[in-house]
Amino acid sequence: MLPGKGSSLSPSNLESFLQSYKADTQLQEIQEPVRAELDEVEALIHRFFESDIHLIRGISRQLLGVMGKKFRPTLLLLVSHVGAPRRDDALFGAAVIELIHTATLIHDDTIDRSALRRGLPTINALYNDLVATILGDYIYTKAFNELLERNLPQVVPVVARTTYRMSIGEMLQLQQKHDLNVTAEEYFQLVDEKTASLMAASTEVGALLAGLGDERVLRYRRFGQALGRAYQVTDDLFDFLGSPDVIGKGVQSDLAEGTFTLPLIHALAHAPAKERSRLRDLAVSKDLQADDWRTLLKILETSGAIAHCREQACALAEEALAAIEEEPASPWKKALERAVAYAVQRIH
Amino acid sequence: MLPGKGSSLSPSNLESFLQSYKADTQLQEIQEPVRAELDEVEALIHRFFESDIHLIRGISRQLLGVMGKKFRPTLLLLVSHVGAPRRDDALFGAAVIELIHTATLIHDDTIDRSALRRGLPTINALYNDLVATILGDYIYTKAFNELLERNLPQVVPVVARTTYRMSIGEMLQLQQKHDLNVTAEEYFQLVDEKTASLMAASTEVGALLAGLGDERVLRYRRFGQALGRAYQVTDDLFDFLGSPDVIGKGVQSDLAEGTFTLPLIHALAHAPAKERSRLRDLAVSKDLQADDWRTLLKILETSGAIAHCREQACALAEEALAAIEEEPASPWKKALERAVAYAVQRIH
Repeated sequence: MLPGKGSSLSPSNLESFLQSYKADTQLQEIQEPVRAELDEVEALIHRFFESDIHLIRGISRQLLGVMGKKFRPTLLLLVSHVGAPRRDDALFGAAVIELIHTATLIHDDTIDRSALRRGLPTINALYNDLVATILGDYIYTKAFNELLERNLPQVVPVVARTTYRMSIGEMLQLQQKHDLNVTAEEYFQLVDEKTASLMAASTEVGALLAGLGDERVLRYRRFGQALGRAYQVTDDLFDFLGSPDVIGKGVQSDLAEGTFTLPLIHALAHAPAKERSRLRDLAVSKDLQADDWRTLLKILETSGAIAHCREQACALAEEALAAIEEEPASPWKKALERAVAYAVQRIH
Repeated sequence: MLPGKGSSLSPSNLESFLQSYKADTQLQEIQEPVRAELDEVEALIHRFFESDIHLIRGISRQLLGVMGKKFRPTLLLLVSHVGAPRRDDALFGAAVIELIHTATLIHDDTIDRSALRRGLPTINALYNDLVATILGDYIYTKAFNELLERNLPQVVPVVARTTYRMSIGEMLQLQQKHDLNVTAEEYFQLVDEKTASLMAASTEVGALLAGLGDERVLRYRRFGQALGRAYQVTDDLFDFLGSPDVIGKGVQSDLAEGTFTLPLIHALAHAPAKERSRLRDLAVSKDLQADDWRTLLKILETSGAIAHCREQACALAEEALAAIEEEPASPWKKALERAVAYAVQRIH
């Protein structure tokens, strides 16, 4: 895809750009059709952490306090309603997906050495890296074990493949750190393994539990895959453009960690030689001042990188919508379409 | 079981005690009937780490250099020969078990902050904790994924349950750290989850792949379970009595890490009040001198703790032998019986 021309965003528009970020409101609307079920999923997750081992109970109390917005269970449940799932299985599948997501976040925060997630302390900040490693293992292996006991043979290989792909994503992330020569292709490989794989698994498992045929399962899988890519490109763009006050996680944190994402990768490939050299210096600087940050954003802007990322996200959003275009109209389909808007809304 | 009376070991006998430790020789004998197969398992493990991702290739080269003695694959293969397995499946099962074991060691070394294993640097010492966390995840999830693709439905739940139990073991280990009130019962709970579960899985999977009936599968499972317990009690005793020159891993390291094992637990419960108080001080001391260590060993000795641990290990070894007593005689059974002797030989 070529860098965008017509839709570039001038720095003075950043403010209104941010104003449009009202994720919580909109997510609540998307979740409306499955609100009661999401509460049941939450209850299942609470039951999951019941244990004779007081350390597990103690940590999980912290963990349950910082549980996320349940975007992936929402996708799974919405898709499942398209067919005729056994409700208990759909709820259970949604809980497993959220637990896998949680385990990944815990190991991820260890890897990133994050102290905050969604504005609250991470497990590795509250305890330490070692507890985080063990807790992640515990959640992974228990979720898998319960999944097997549940006897959902069609779901097991999807979850197994996905957790494997996510661990490859962790590896790629580590390999790409501090590497200014990362290409857009390598960036998307990482996005596919680390983020899109679990979104795709959420919609695929929803479709499988709904009892849909192979072709329709594939549609929903593709929907989740494109949605996940759009979501991550938006997230990475927002790491440059967002304000720490508006979103719960830190922004301007990718660069500080040596993680180079699409806006920078694109600018490094397309900016004029002189600006490219300046950008490389800024990207590896350990101590970016406000002035430096403005210069960096300016180069991203003038090189067309920001417009390109917005166009990429929009194209991926369209790809997601196209994947389920032939699906019959329903309140569930409508909510899924809104989920696409939610994933990229920060760039509108 | 009561603390032993007749068989206690005087400190002056420590030397001859150590002389009897010729593990490598004896393990080679046990492995003789499956030597060629173990080489094939090793080749499978090498193929497992082939990857497009150079970070995985790089780390795995280090890892494969420090691969262990393959005690668990040996058990699995020996048991499998009792029946009529598909050879490829048995080799594959043995590789999966060894990989799960390896992943656990990697996360374990992170948790223990070990710098050495088998006399060579650990992954977390060579790289860092974060790489170790990711690598462990990668090995777990890939092993599981391959297991599912292989279509061995009888093996999958055994491995899933075992990895879950091992993660509980990690939790218990963390919970018990620095806790001088740990009981023998709690100690054995940890041993069961962390060590015996994987030995039991090795022999159970061997029996399942051999196509044995339920009753015989259970026998081999019990054999592995008792063997694992005997092995761990011996290992923990040897952490007090061993010499760093003779075994590859560090000795006298449990106490330094705040890990209190059966010898200490038993002495704390059975030594006279005055010695008990001295022992508590020594156990939590950050800087044990050679004199302190001699005092500590002396209390373990006179309280009967060392004799008790030896008797426990012997009783567990007998339990393992009894579990397969009714199995027909064969070279495989003979090698398994020798594996029991190997597990506890350090205490003879």
